[in-house]
Amino acid sequence: MKLVTIRHQGHRKVGVIRPGTDRIWLLEEMLGRPVGDMLAILPELEAIRKTATFAGDGVAASDVRIEAPIPRPARNVFCVGKNYHEHAKEFTRSGFDSSASSAADAIPTAPIIFTKAPECVIADGDDILYPTGISDSLDYEAELAVVIGRRGRGIPKSRAYDHVCGYTIVNDVTARDLQARHKQWFLGKSLDTFCPMGPWLVTADEVDPENLTVKCWVNDELRQDANTRDLIFDIPTLVETISAGMTLQPGDVIATGTPVGVGIGFTPPRFLRPGDRVTIEIEGLGRLSNRVKA
Amino acid sequence: MKLVTIRHQGHRKVGVIRPGTDRIWLLEEMLGRPVGDMLAILPELEAIRKTATFAGDGVAASDVRIEAPIPRPARNVFCVGKNYHEHAKEFTRSGFDSSASSAADAIPTAPIIFTKAPECVIADGDDILYPTGISDSLDYEAELAVVIGRRGRGIPKSRAYDHVCGYTIVNDVTARDLQARHKQWFLGKSLDTFCPMGPWLVTADEVDPENLTVKCWVNDELRQDANTRDLIFDIPTLVETISAGMTLQPGDVIATGTPVGVGIGFTPPRFLRPGDRVTIEIEGLGRLSNRVKA
Repeated sequence: MKLVTIRHQGHRKVGVIRPGTDRIWLLEEMLGRPVGDMLAILPELEAIRKTATFAGDGVAASDVRIEAPIPRPARNVFCVGKNYHEHAKEFTRSGFDSSASSAADAIPTAPIIFTKAPECVIADGDDILYPTGISDSLDYEAELAVVIGRRGRGIPKSRAYDHVCGYTIVNDVTARDLQARHKQWFLGKSLDTFCPMGPWLVTADEVDPENLTVKCWVNDELRQDANTRDLIFDIPTLVETISAGMTLQPGDVIATGTPVGVGIGFTPPRFLRPGDRVTIEIEGLGRLSNRVKA
Repeated sequence: MKLVTIRHQGHRKVGVIRPGTDRIWLLEEMLGRPVGDMLAILPELEAIRKTATFAGDGVAASDVRIEAPIPRPARNVFCVGKNYHEHAKEFTRSGFDSSASSAADAIPTAPIIFTKAPECVIADGDDILYPTGISDSLDYEAELAVVIGRRGRGIPKSRAYDHVCGYTIVNDVTARDLQARHKQWFLGKSLDTFCPMGPWLVTADEVDPENLTVKCWVNDELRQDANTRDLIFDIPTLVETISAGMTLQPGDVIATGTPVGVGIGFTPPRFLRPGDRVTIEIEGLGRLSNRVKA
């Protein structure tokens, strides 16, 4: 099931995209009862999936504003650094990697976890604000994002997927100079508008997260083209690592890391400029496209 | 004015401690109107301070449960790493510092900003859970925490204090092994119960944040004894740096960094063990005391 957060008649609502159409059914009408926002319904997605029925005509996707599936996560977005081999190497080679002092350190031996502020989240189609006067090394990172549906602490790998309710796309937009200068990456990852997310949330039953092609274009040029099977630390390992001492909550978003092909991977680096458009496509999860605006 | 979040007759409420007493007045009674939680009232603290009056008897502090002043920040707590000279050196020397590859790198040239998950927050008197099986290098960090009262982006140093509504104490509890192993510090800083905060929030008018003694005891032994005048990056610099490209929000908490004297500063390191009690005192801000529980 593909769930969308929409703005409908002045209210934020959750809708379902009917397969094979571009029409959206309001979840409150499908279930015949009020539903909260996406965060409120994540723990019951499995039950909802079994009872929701399409009746009537729904609304045309083009008639509503589609927001990020989780427009405002309840806490910072979890992100994983250097989680594809070739990207880990390109990043360390670039000189912007404060986590490694030499090429020998490029491949992490444990997941690198940092966060992005939740207010950075923007929707498909929204503008990424060019950080004029703050950074001149704006970069993109196409990533598969995992959405947690069930609370848990000390989750073993073997049960990790029981806690995942769905998937979406995240662009882990980064100011490379700030990322390097401040050592810890949070600041360079958290400028306003630096977390495009969407276009929708696909429930876990429809996704094989360990075999998805991830593509990213800057304007018409394909820059990233990889498969999630090449993650250094897979999703069960990430869930086990993060939840070992820290309770994961429904609505937590884990961006699993970006593959090779980001701007700093080129010599000289090819940073984003105002007017550029970044488009990410992940198999089965749709397309997330955002323009950089001065 | 000293504001406390309390649990009173089954509800979370905001109270004011009457100077020189250990009695608390409910803010809703002082103002004669309903008030929300601490997050809701931060933007109007200045006005509240001018109109609130003490009538009646209030309630005895010992009769209510005192919670953390901001029991659940709206997003991760902002933290500053290595922000006192002698601590920066002890940390780099300890071998646990993934941000510096040699002693020459010990003193940061720009603020190091990372985050702690908001669910880590616990109150004065609550237990810090010993992370059995997850970490065996539990450490304390006494810190002055700044609370933001007014939203802002691109805040210059000269206006930084206009955006600060108050101060409290934070113990930036840390699992040193996780902090080092995962390179980015978020995970080692965010285990459940790793953010003791409190005991209350003191409004900015009563505090000279640039000249406060910060003391920390483990059991009866004084381990940290410093003054905030020795911060490498002062509060205006931190507010300017963080807000440059990222909008600060009312309720944001910035823990400004810890001085010399943490457990890894000793040779061999002196980590916290179950049964230990960590007590922090900052001039004018009270005492924050928490026991480590197995």
